[in-house]
Amino acid sequence: MGQTIVEKIVSTHAGKCVHAGDLTVVDVDFLMASDTTAPLAINAFKNMGGQRIFDPTKMALVIDHASPAPNQRIASLHDLMREFANEQGIKLYDVGDGICHQLMIENRHARPGQLVLGADSHTCTYGAIGTFSTGVGSTDLAGAMLTGRTWLKVPETILIKINGSLPKGVSAKDLVLHVVGIIGIQGATYDAIEYTGTTMEDLSLDSRMTIASMSIEMGAKAGFIHTKGLSLPYEFEHVLPDSDATYKQIIDIDASTVTSQVAVPHSPDNVVSIENLNEIIIHQAFIGSCTNGRLEDLHAAAEILKDKRVHPNVRLIIAPASRKVFLDALQDGTVETLTKAGATFLPSGCGPCVGTHLGIPGNNEVIVSSTNRNFLGRMGNRNSDIYLGSPAFVAAAALRGKITNPQKLLEGVCGS
Amino acid sequence: MGQTIVEKIVSTHAGKCVHAGDLTVVDVDFLMASDTTAPLAINAFKNMGGQRIFDPTKMALVIDHASPAPNQRIASLHDLMREFANEQGIKLYDVGDGICHQLMIENRHARPGQLVLGADSHTCTYGAIGTFSTGVGSTDLAGAMLTGRTWLKVPETILIKINGSLPKGVSAKDLVLHVVGIIGIQGATYDAIEYTGTTMEDLSLDSRMTIASMSIEMGAKAGFIHTKGLSLPYEFEHVLPDSDATYKQIIDIDASTVTSQVAVPHSPDNVVSIENLNEIIIHQAFIGSCTNGRLEDLHAAAEILKDKRVHPNVRLIIAPASRKVFLDALQDGTVETLTKAGATFLPSGCGPCVGTHLGIPGNNEVIVSSTNRNFLGRMGNRNSDIYLGSPAFVAAAALRGKITNPQKLLEGVCGS
Repeated sequence: MGQTIVEKIVSTHAGKCVHAGDLTVVDVDFLMASDTTAPLAINAFKNMGGQRIFDPTKMALVIDHASPAPNQRIASLHDLMREFANEQGIKLYDVGDGICHQLMIENRHARPGQLVLGADSHTCTYGAIGTFSTGVGSTDLAGAMLTGRTWLKVPETILIKINGSLPKGVSAKDLVLHVVGIIGIQGATYDAIEYTGTTMEDLSLDSRMTIASMSIEMGAKAGFIHTKGLSLPYEFEHVLPDSDATYKQIIDIDASTVTSQVAVPHSPDNVVSIENLNEIIIHQAFIGSCTNGRLEDLHAAAEILKDKRVHPNVRLIIAPASRKVFLDALQDGTVETLTKAGATFLPSGCGPCVGTHLGIPGNNEVIVSSTNRNFLGRMGNRNSDIYLGSPAFVAAAALRGKITNPQKLLEGVCGS
Repeated sequence: MGQTIVEKIVSTHAGKCVHAGDLTVVDVDFLMASDTTAPLAINAFKNMGGQRIFDPTKMALVIDHASPAPNQRIASLHDLMREFANEQGIKLYDVGDGICHQLMIENRHARPGQLVLGADSHTCTYGAIGTFSTGVGSTDLAGAMLTGRTWLKVPETILIKINGSLPKGVSAKDLVLHVVGIIGIQGATYDAIEYTGTTMEDLSLDSRMTIASMSIEMGAKAGFIHTKGLSLPYEFEHVLPDSDATYKQIIDIDASTVTSQVAVPHSPDNVVSIENLNEIIIHQAFIGSCTNGRLEDLHAAAEILKDKRVHPNVRLIIAPASRKVFLDALQDGTVETLTKAGATFLPSGCGPCVGTHLGIPGNNEVIVSSTNRNFLGRMGNRNSDIYLGSPAFVAAAALRGKITNPQKLLEGVCGS
């Protein structure tokens, strides 16, 4: 009986052949917690009587959600993490190193075919490289820290086939918003999603991470991009399902018909084509997050903003996903292009996406954002509206001061 | 009867000849308020029945103290400033533009010979270019917004003569800390200070601003650097005292004898030569503020950190004084050098210096900082110690993980 990707990975980690619906215990390859969850996980670990974690080389802690510390309470939580990491011999990523999910892939803590748990919902991002990675609660993480194992029910899988070329100015973010719009925020609850097709084969690693990261926005346990076409800076075995694997549902998408997509307030599945949106006045524009804070995303923004100026009534804030992303963007001139356009760079981290600091909206403000969630109050103010879209969408709105179709703007740029 | 600089500037703005001790009303050339004080000043202005400010071209508002907004309350204060600026036609510097005092000089709002009020204690910074600028309370500022005038008592003046060459690795910050150590934090209360001598003539604008900014750390109303040797990007008349001006006190300093100076907890006048300090372990290092966040300061740090790595137990955070400073440092490679060394760049603003966000110390942490105040709790945590010094001092400590004499390190670098 053929297996899906998640069935294969769980089987290798359970030491037995499993299929969707089976309950099993698995070995974990790596664990991760951020400053939002690590303090809770550390306390739970200690309450369980934990002395040493099962393997200190298999865990990393990341200070990214509120970094550098915006207040004394959070500074103390950071210190708790530093102490624990030091005492256990665990790798700690500190202030400015980057967003946990970016660091997990950059630093090869997550690899194709592995099973990784993170105490953060967007841990599903590593499905971009064929890792079965999923978000767990702090207490579940503490159990895995103690034992090196966890239990799970093997998910069913939805297969999404995407073929064709994306139109100019339409990106992976538009594609995944389109998918979220179809499936809905609960439509894939506890399922795995597999993405395949020629469109996916051509996608960069950055784009694959964008798509995988938003699996949780459909309730999915994991989201895998078939590794065909994937390039990594090391040798790896491809992670592909059997040809006779069983899928819960199969969805076909023609990429050439996808337009710029926007998730309007207050849910990531309130997705509309930008052509159906009015030119709403905006106040703040944010490019960043584990979903869209990478080099490719900064390039997309720079393409729109090069030799131009952000609208005087808009604050454009940009948080590169890691210090490495910032450095790459420094070296290729992208930081300069965006700074000249009036953008403000934030230290690498989650910041405004999670509403911890560094750009809390004012009352009655409209925010355009390249992030993954626009729930009421997500960015720290319930009296503000968040529109989610691609980095090009955010840059176009920042330039014009109102919601603008980046495809039109790019045509304009070429024609001018 | 000869006049000091402050007597001259007040006389031109009072329309009559005044001397130290006289009470007078003066016209103001420019007004400034930041996000800490502007909301109070705006409310006071409205409570006074204010409708329009006396001249909207003569005021700027700057969002810098807690920027981008770390919480909803502050986001609302920022919005209040934006609304007022828009309604009055006042220039507003928004998120990421820079620190108010840097912007006032960069954008020529303060010029030699002018009289400027700012609702921030470090407004005295513009004495670097021969402006009589001083910090006032929000209510006093509101009065000036309404009338274009203020009243003051003409200060007495202390003259500080500094001659000779500063040793390698010793900077303007060391010099002014040395002066603060001599005079004490109340030693120049309500006085003006004038700095003159060959050492001063050779100083860059950046260095002059460092020295002028710390006038308030001695209680001074203003601190002027004689404009001899000053270079500005526009024509200006020199601001110099009469040769027979009357001084309250004259202090002579031989710059060649000044060593690296450190203000130890918890006062800026607890100044010691670094040679008398132990190698105290540090946790966070900050380069920034109106005192030391300029290009020259970033260069000094880069000289120490080039091709090296910040100590793994230290967070080095850097906030350039303005977007222009950041852009200049981008273009000459300094941002790259420091990022490669492990530094984290913050958006331009005050941030950690004033303890609003972006690097609040943990409990029992030791901070080295290029800023101007190390009072207990200044950076947002009363359970931490702050050591103030030059950017080279901060970089050296960040590199070694402990307080280190940058002069020794620079010798070492040259000798290696």
